[in-house]
Amino acid sequence: MSAQRRVERHAFIVGVRPERREEYLRLHRNVWQQVEQTLRDAHITNYSIFIVGDVLFAYYEYVGDDHAADLGRVAEDPVSREWWTYTDPCQTRIVEERTPGALWQPLEEVWHLP
Amino acid sequence: MSAQRRVERHAFIVGVRPERREEYLRLHRNVWQQVEQTLRDAHITNYSIFIVGDVLFAYYEYVGDDHAADLGRVAEDPVSREWWTYTDPCQTRIVEERTPGALWQPLEEVWHLP
Repeated sequence: MSAQRRVERHAFIVGVRPERREEYLRLHRNVWQQVEQTLRDAHITNYSIFIVGDVLFAYYEYVGDDHAADLGRVAEDPVSREWWTYTDPCQTRIVEERTPGALWQPLEEVWHLP
Repeated sequence: MSAQRRVERHAFIVGVRPERREEYLRLHRNVWQQVEQTLRDAHITNYSIFIVGDVLFAYYEYVGDDHAADLGRVAEDPVSREWWTYTDPCQTRIVEERTPGALWQPLEEVWHLP
């Protein structure tokens, strides 16, 4: 990564339904290649999903020029949409809705140490 | 960052006491320089803290060879310990205790896209 390249850090939180927790973990042991390629094509990098109890946390770095437009392209990818038919039922929103209709809700950055 | 360098990704979650939320945010607008230097010296990099509602999430990358030993050195730094006398009262553990006595509890990585 070039030190000059602008990087946006994004973080999201969602709950995992307890009865679907193992299914969610199993799905993520073999994420579909096209799902990952679509994210790369959308300038999303260093993407991690973490879990504790029934809480999922996601962190990624966006290195493109239009995050919303790139996410829109991801949302139009048929393979990603099919993938979400498996993952969405595992998830439940656990914080106040800031992104309407989304399961994964964004966090705000409080502090950053490069 | 060298692509060869081994990087451990670490994530932690804690609650913020609603009545202390603004105080926590205010403290993090001016984190003490020595607190940040102690983290750098402990091989901790790309460290972000995020908030949504009353939930705080932390993500950092560890680039040293002994995470526990480096955290132990951070825990012995008098300036960091004084900093925590301001931040700890803002926080409350919100998940099952996996690190005994810690407010910030670790998450497990489910999936990573480089």
